[in-house]
Amino acid sequence: MAGNTFGQLFRITTFGESHGEAIGVIIDGCPPNVEIDLEFIQGELDKRKPGQSKITTQRKESDTAKILSGVFGGKSTGTPIAMVIPNEDQRSKDYDHNKDIFRPSHADFTYQAKYGNRDYRGGGRSSARETAARVAAGAVARLFLKQKGIEIFAHVSSAGAIDAPNVPSRNLAELLEIRESNIVRCADPATANEMIELIDGVRKQGDTIGGKISCIIRNCPVGLGEPVFDKLHADLGKAMLSINAVHGFEYGSGFAGSEMRGSEHNDIFIAPEGDAPVSTLTNFSGGIQGGISNGMDIMFRVAFKPIATIMQSQQTIDKDGNAAEIKGKGRHDPCVVPRAVVIVEAMAALVIADHLLRQEAISL
Amino acid sequence: MAGNTFGQLFRITTFGESHGEAIGVIIDGCPPNVEIDLEFIQGELDKRKPGQSKITTQRKESDTAKILSGVFGGKSTGTPIAMVIPNEDQRSKDYDHNKDIFRPSHADFTYQAKYGNRDYRGGGRSSARETAARVAAGAVARLFLKQKGIEIFAHVSSAGAIDAPNVPSRNLAELLEIRESNIVRCADPATANEMIELIDGVRKQGDTIGGKISCIIRNCPVGLGEPVFDKLHADLGKAMLSINAVHGFEYGSGFAGSEMRGSEHNDIFIAPEGDAPVSTLTNFSGGIQGGISNGMDIMFRVAFKPIATIMQSQQTIDKDGNAAEIKGKGRHDPCVVPRAVVIVEAMAALVIADHLLRQEAISL
Amino acid sequence: MAGNTFGQLFRITTFGESHGEAIGVIIDGCPPNVEIDLEFIQGELDKRKPGQSKITTQRKESDTAKILSGVFGGKSTGTPIAMVIPNEDQRSKDYDHNKDIFRPSHADFTYQAKYGNRDYRGGGRSSARETAARVAAGAVARLFLKQKGIEIFAHVSSAGAIDAPNVPSRNLAELLEIRESNIVRCADPATANEMIELIDGVRKQGDTIGGKISCIIRNCPVGLGEPVFDKLHADLGKAMLSINAVHGFEYGSGFAGSEMRGSEHNDIFIAPEGDAPVSTLTNFSGGIQGGISNGMDIMFRVAFKPIATIMQSQQTIDKDGNAAEIKGKGRHDPCVVPRAVVIVEAMAALVIADHLLRQEAISL
Amino acid sequence: MAGNTFGQLFRITTFGESHGEAIGVIIDGCPPNVEIDLEFIQGELDKRKPGQSKITTQRKESDTAKILSGVFGGKSTGTPIAMVIPNEDQRSKDYDHNKDIFRPSHADFTYQAKYGNRDYRGGGRSSARETAARVAAGAVARLFLKQKGIEIFAHVSSAGAIDAPNVPSRNLAELLEIRESNIVRCADPATANEMIELIDGVRKQGDTIGGKISCIIRNCPVGLGEPVFDKLHADLGKAMLSINAVHGFEYGSGFAGSEMRGSEHNDIFIAPEGDAPVSTLTNFSGGIQGGISNGMDIMFRVAFKPIATIMQSQQTIDKDGNAAEIKGKGRHDPCVVPRAVVIVEAMAALVIADHLLRQEAISL
Repeated sequence: MAGNTFGQLFRITTFGESHGEAIGVIIDGCPPNVEIDLEFIQGELDKRKPGQSKITTQRKESDTAKILSGVFGGKSTGTPIAMVIPNEDQRSKDYDHNKDIFRPSHADFTYQAKYGNRDYRGGGRSSARETAARVAAGAVARLFLKQKGIEIFAHVSSAGAIDAPNVPSRNLAELLEIRESNIVRCADPATANEMIELIDGVRKQGDTIGGKISCIIRNCPVGLGEPVFDKLHADLGKAMLSINAVHGFEYGSGFAGSEMRGSEHNDIFIAPEGDAPVSTLTNFSGGIQGGISNGMDIMFRVAFKPIATIMQSQQTIDKDGNAAEIKGKGRHDPCVVPRAVVIVEAMAALVIADHLLRQEAISL
Repeated sequence: MAGNTFGQLFRITTFGESHGEAIGVIIDGCPPNVEIDLEFIQGELDKRKPGQSKITTQRKESDTAKILSGVFGGKSTGTPIAMVIPNEDQRSKDYDHNKDIFRPSHADFTYQAKYGNRDYRGGGRSSARETAARVAAGAVARLFLKQKGIEIFAHVSSAGAIDAPNVPSRNLAELLEIRESNIVRCADPATANEMIELIDGVRKQGDTIGGKISCIIRNCPVGLGEPVFDKLHADLGKAMLSINAVHGFEYGSGFAGSEMRGSEHNDIFIAPEGDAPVSTLTNFSGGIQGGISNGMDIMFRVAFKPIATIMQSQQTIDKDGNAAEIKGKGRHDPCVVPRAVVIVEAMAALVIADHLLRQEAISL
Repeated sequence: MAGNTFGQLFRITTFGESHGEAIGVIIDGCPPNVEIDLEFIQGELDKRKPGQSKITTQRKESDTAKILSGVFGGKSTGTPIAMVIPNEDQRSKDYDHNKDIFRPSHADFTYQAKYGNRDYRGGGRSSARETAARVAAGAVARLFLKQKGIEIFAHVSSAGAIDAPNVPSRNLAELLEIRESNIVRCADPATANEMIELIDGVRKQGDTIGGKISCIIRNCPVGLGEPVFDKLHADLGKAMLSINAVHGFEYGSGFAGSEMRGSEHNDIFIAPEGDAPVSTLTNFSGGIQGGISNGMDIMFRVAFKPIATIMQSQQTIDKDGNAAEIKGKGRHDPCVVPRAVVIVEAMAALVIADHLLRQEAISL
Repeated sequence: MAGNTFGQLFRITTFGESHGEAIGVIIDGCPPNVEIDLEFIQGELDKRKPGQSKITTQRKESDTAKILSGVFGGKSTGTPIAMVIPNEDQRSKDYDHNKDIFRPSHADFTYQAKYGNRDYRGGGRSSARETAARVAAGAVARLFLKQKGIEIFAHVSSAGAIDAPNVPSRNLAELLEIRESNIVRCADPATANEMIELIDGVRKQGDTIGGKISCIIRNCPVGLGEPVFDKLHADLGKAMLSINAVHGFEYGSGFAGSEMRGSEHNDIFIAPEGDAPVSTLTNFSGGIQGGISNGMDIMFRVAFKPIATIMQSQQTIDKDGNAAEIKGKGRHDPCVVPRAVVIVEAMAALVIADHLLRQEAISL
């Protein structure tokens, strides 16, 4: 119950602190006979790793995942898949000044209060470094989903107040190519340039800024999601809200939908021709009705706050409650979303893989 | 894993269909010696029950909860508390026309596809009637929290595009009194009148409209919430997203926060005087940092889509995929938020109660 | 985590005290489209109910189960099946003398110490009456297993020191008929008579005696059971040890196997002819190898201690630690095993149903 | 649900195959501020490691545990503690002959049927090597329990048909010293010699033999264990039955108790003098009443079958169902119990640690 496990049947447990020996993950429940493509896993990690471009942190870590168990002859065996990612470029000294001071809007104060014993180096367990383990596990989930024809695509749809237009309804592989052609990971190249300019400007001011990521899950079979509490969007929401810096989640029509009338919001069914699957004229439901996937694209959006570590002086307090001043050191991201795109995809993949197994369990 | 259980240590399991014998809930993990005030529980159910006012459904059900176990001498015993709410005013015939037709944006199609055998009367298990069981269980959680001094308050902060101003920072008991003085359950009386007018107009058109509910949790101790996956806001988010018709969740600065700079978003600590608790100048963190409560007010907002059942003709399909027409019958709500306020509070109470016990477990 | 839930995917949660309103159970995870035969369920409850014969308690309760949800058109819908069994023949006054006194080898002292607030009437939650809810739920599991061709049979193999010979390897339906032809529920009629005589003699002395129940699960598919911790026999063991008064569990060769050599204990595989399933010459493994079913009969044995309530005077202490004397009142069983046979079968059915679903989940 | 996780609040997840890179464990839920004594952990592993004496396998592995996370300044931080034990002395070639042949009474056949893809080297995931990860995790649990004054002691009480007398009621530290003075780990030196002679003789014949381990848990507080399903002895039973080769579990009076009368079996309470804790004259309840610890010594016994790998020729079948012959190669134990003593203690520690936290959670 200590909260380091996610999923019911396709289940991951992560471990590790930012400046400890290593971080890692155990995947328990991956079905046997999934082809474990190491290059794909590493490719996903590379999209999250630090030091990718001028608008990410300049820390350099290769984030190389090593598989310790659960794979035989290139395929999963159905036993736990353990993966370890050693920590490399730790400048723990960058954090000595944090030892007894609580950084504003960080987890320093709450961890100290909760546990009493806190690894303050680099944020310890509260560091977003933990998400590398999620990306590795999510990559395995994606390999499983790939075998089922299910695709997941996310991109940066907003940086600060700059919003990208809705992505055109096209092939996800094409969108991926466009997204990866720019360092901010937006599927609209023109907007991408604006976003990069904004983030770079913010960085130069020693400040940070938030953003949003939009995600599409395609070819998800009808029937995933469990009423009542484990609605598919509720599990997606929890997954996204568990990512560092996330402050909001909406699916389908989302917050805007709360201003609509039922007569415009209802997704009218289209009578299918021949063997075609059931579809709807609009998709305000975001592919989920009554908590269960209906076969349409699953669509959701995630809001990230600006990262708390800024390169400016801030007032704060120390462990004893005395006023203090702090200035960010270390190497940090001016905006989290470019690196968070694969984290969103990874968590989405884990939720879908889990619900695929859960649905299978009642199909007997 | 069939999704009818919520919580880890303070755990509820609900059952029941809209037009079956009864709905109900088992609470497992309520600590012993909590005073079980039946009047309070019933009072909460009364705030959710149908037929309250002109802007709610005209169905009449008393929604009387009966406790079957787990209470002795007026106090919880630590054993499961089972509560049953019999179904009363069922006009199942109102739903005969739905038997073979899928209502747009309802769970009819997805339940049929998932299970094959579906109680179509009144939406069966997908009916929001299930939330009465949550309110009953949440009321028990609130009685437990009351013993710990923790208060929860929610109100309708938007109906359609009408937004209430932020509630003044005052006593929650006073806000409750204001909220209960109007039928839309908004803590701002002037806005309440506008909202009521809007909803009543929508109702007369046989249409429906969405809205938003804002919630405050006060006096929550520092330290609740489990990194990494079970962050307090992630569990709150899942709880809210599991409520029927919810399409979005945000806490603290929420979606708006994604447009802010770190330098304005960071909540600066105030050096406490004497024995005062640690506090912050602003509360963009919504009372939660690194997934763990920091002692400030926990604040979040929930977006509800317009209810799918409208009193207008709509195109749809039947079980065999043929085009069909449907018109809502029965007695339905034009806007879900006035009755959903206590559901939001109930789910919030369940999350906080659960995390209180989880935190206690490591305090050894 | 309060321990009133059993199973992962086919999951039950029971509630209720001996002298409260009712006991009952929610089954969550029963697949849809299982035929719910009420007569069968009631028939199982009848085999557990009090007042069956001279060697059981003379309390009279009809133990009639009522289904509140989850069944539509005679079949399960995949939503929670709630069942309630009202308490009827409560002579709570029989227990007034227990209020402040701890009965030896009962749960009075430990519940008081654990919870502080205890329903002392009839043992409250610790009463074996709770097992009626398990039998009702187990009956649903058996209906599901029946659709898969899986059979379960248990009988009283020992009463006190009287052991029945091994049951001949025959049709389980025939064994059931023999078993039900005698009031002690032993599949060997000659031994049954001896057992009845023993138990009746013990009863006349106001004493009680223990016994053993043996169980066979037939036609279980190969592959059920999860290494490492959720081995099939580990889950069966936990299920059996959770039944009131059980003090021991063994499967296959059991305790006697610990005295054998590997060369005699190993079950030699028989090369199958044609499409015949793989089988073994002996079955010391009890149908389970490496924690996973191998297709042979699953065989285990459960030891029950003598019931603690005797009709004799005993020394004990009261709530304040003072010496006291107690004499059993009420109407109690001289030996638990005749009524426990269906409880063993029910729990076995729940374990197998759960593992069937778990295995299905990885068969994607 | 894939069965590699044990415990609810003090929870472990193990991974690894016998001949893979490494085995290991994540402990999630260890409270913060437990002193993590690496020497103690390694000392426990040393008692389980192969190659200890003439009556254990001659494989040599140092079984050195490395902690990757969750410890800071020598104390637990409340975050996951990951430990890895690299595999060293793998002679995988010893297992080439097993690739397509199923060893009798091993998990080869069932794993192959269940998963389709099996790491056959050294038994893969089904190897008892996995228990080293349990011992490492159990050692951490023991360090936690030590802080609470709870002691655990197990020893070999039977090898084959040779039974040790009951251990005298004395200091557990003294018993430990006696136990560790002989290679079979029996607390009675005279019996130990007989046992060693027996096992060595069996080994020379290329055969194996079973045995029993008895365990005492002392100073356990009153109140641990959750009715109804998670009775303390049910969780202990499952823990023990999950250990490789275990075929039986009993606690308190156990199987023998089923032949006793209630009048002799009931544990009479002794009126405590002054502040002394409540105790009983006898302890047939094995320290647990109604599933909850009563403060007396918790006592249970575990039966192990003879190890299946013998150095003799045996008939069997291959993957295609053809008759085949197999002869054990590799280096194996003639009797599992001397090395299993610390596994029993480790699993007992994990169960008690888990229930301590569970009890704490309701003590609010």
